[in-house]
Amino acid sequence: MAEATIDIVAMGDAIVDVIASCDDQFLIDHDLPKGSMQLLTPAQADSLYSAMGQAREMSGGSAANSMAGVAAMGGKSAFIGQVAEDQLGMIFEHDMHALGVHFETPTLIGGPPTGRCLILVTPDAQRTMNTAPGASHELSVDGLDHELIRSASILYLEGYLWGPEKPRAAMMKAVEIAHDAGRNVAFTLSESVCIAGRKEGFAAMIDGGGVDLLFANEDEVLQLTGRTDVDAALAELRAKVPTLVVTHGPDGASAIRDGEMIRIPAAPVSQVVDTTGAGDLFAAGFLTAHCKGASLERCLWTGAIAAGEVIQHYGARPITDLKAKIGL
Amino acid sequence: MAEATIDIVAMGDAIVDVIASCDDQFLIDHDLPKGSMQLLTPAQADSLYSAMGQAREMSGGSAANSMAGVAAMGGKSAFIGQVAEDQLGMIFEHDMHALGVHFETPTLIGGPPTGRCLILVTPDAQRTMNTAPGASHELSVDGLDHELIRSASILYLEGYLWGPEKPRAAMMKAVEIAHDAGRNVAFTLSESVCIAGRKEGFAAMIDGGGVDLLFANEDEVLQLTGRTDVDAALAELRAKVPTLVVTHGPDGASAIRDGEMIRIPAAPVSQVVDTTGAGDLFAAGFLTAHCKGASLERCLWTGAIAAGEVIQHYGARPITDLKAKIGL
Repeated sequence: MAEATIDIVAMGDAIVDVIASCDDQFLIDHDLPKGSMQLLTPAQADSLYSAMGQAREMSGGSAANSMAGVAAMGGKSAFIGQVAEDQLGMIFEHDMHALGVHFETPTLIGGPPTGRCLILVTPDAQRTMNTAPGASHELSVDGLDHELIRSASILYLEGYLWGPEKPRAAMMKAVEIAHDAGRNVAFTLSESVCIAGRKEGFAAMIDGGGVDLLFANEDEVLQLTGRTDVDAALAELRAKVPTLVVTHGPDGASAIRDGEMIRIPAAPVSQVVDTTGAGDLFAAGFLTAHCKGASLERCLWTGAIAAGEVIQHYGARPITDLKAKIGL
Repeated sequence: MAEATIDIVAMGDAIVDVIASCDDQFLIDHDLPKGSMQLLTPAQADSLYSAMGQAREMSGGSAANSMAGVAAMGGKSAFIGQVAEDQLGMIFEHDMHALGVHFETPTLIGGPPTGRCLILVTPDAQRTMNTAPGASHELSVDGLDHELIRSASILYLEGYLWGPEKPRAAMMKAVEIAHDAGRNVAFTLSESVCIAGRKEGFAAMIDGGGVDLLFANEDEVLQLTGRTDVDAALAELRAKVPTLVVTHGPDGASAIRDGEMIRIPAAPVSQVVDTTGAGDLFAAGFLTAHCKGASLERCLWTGAIAAGEVIQHYGARPITDLKAKIGL
């Protein structure tokens, strides 16, 4: 097995976040469950955007945010995801390169525009996400850089991109490439993985040993296992994945590896402004520490510190010196 | 004279800000004087953007920010400025409409893209602005809505747009329309007004009674008058404009009207994050109070409160409830 030259290569949505504040009534009026993520058609996206308040635009995408976080903490990261040849695509590409993330996926020509996620932040700092995925969900196996995947210690896959068929096929191919090269595969669940049909395919991948490290929140482990009790769901999953990491929102996070289970509280923060990206940065911190050979507990703490930074400001990527904060 | 149906109509740059943090060395390396505004060619803009860090995009433009502020404080405002038919243009248009600002200037078809301002914010919260004006500087007299200009109590003109010849001609036409309708003309100076050639034209307009209300900072009054002493510059200008308003940065602001001179300190703020938009929001507050018939002192205080809000976060437009803060 050749030595890995980068730490983590991720596959995920390549989208620009459009972030605006709103009150609870706005979510009710537009039939948007608070804290959820829904996919919008282009027409629905235009209609919701028209109704939204003044916004700020910032590069986003769950796994892309994580790779931005890994780079900000001094790790070597790469990203595979697809934008279109337009201004939002240029913004996404610029921000990845500005952070030092390797990003060379070919731009989609002649298809839908670069994806947008319309994020509504309520006064309680919760975010409700409404994604018009555009070019992002047109990613196909042709967009895969095999050599890049082989060169990374960890292949990290985002659940949102597991939803649509074309990128799901690309992800399954990427898993094959990574495992053939002796690399580990990490996966972050999301509701879109847990919908009927996809869930069975995902369960089969887990059962077949396809996932070495699984990130999920409590809701997601319940949906994936079909159970109603978190502990029972964890007991089921821990038997299938070597490392299982579960976030509990403001109640911290836990990890199970080799029979060892550790739970930590959330990092203390002075103010919570916007929870967008909390899970993404938690995964970034955990993975960065993991690649440096840190203990399971240190991995969890590093994730908690990174998540704590990102919820204290608008936007899903770190804006302060995370490398100094984590001290790795 | 028909009764005005809106408070203020502004003409200015229609651009999207691209805001990134940088250290002082970055400004030195790129030969950018801190706190200044320079115009970039498209190639220079692409080169500087490549070198900049991860950014956030937010609608900007000096007078456009002011009109956003007026609307946020409960005033009725309109804006004349030009974007292209692209994603940044859509963002600019959305944000104006989301704030309730009337904005119907025809989009430029087939010309340069929507303008961008690359804003670099140093740790001392100062902003250095680098503008690729694009479609914004293609605004011509054809883009003027005569009826709109006639319907507003005040026509507010931005000095940055006085620089290029085509929009300058449009502004001079707008002044004529406004004065013919018995309206007042307010003007905010900027370095671009004070360059040789333009300065003489502007001085002639002031001497001819074309400006009823002039906003400037200390540097600008010195450059416009060619003097080296602020008091002497003010004495010269106060004889030429009915209302003269001068901002002194962290030292507050002063106004002179009908022989009365009032000076106030800056509004107290807990933290200064990004001074972008401070002058724009000061003008917005002053004008909003002015249109409600407030005293000169109250106009200054309202400007100071609005400026104080905008320097406490990234971006040049208010994000908190300014209407409640000013209590008008």
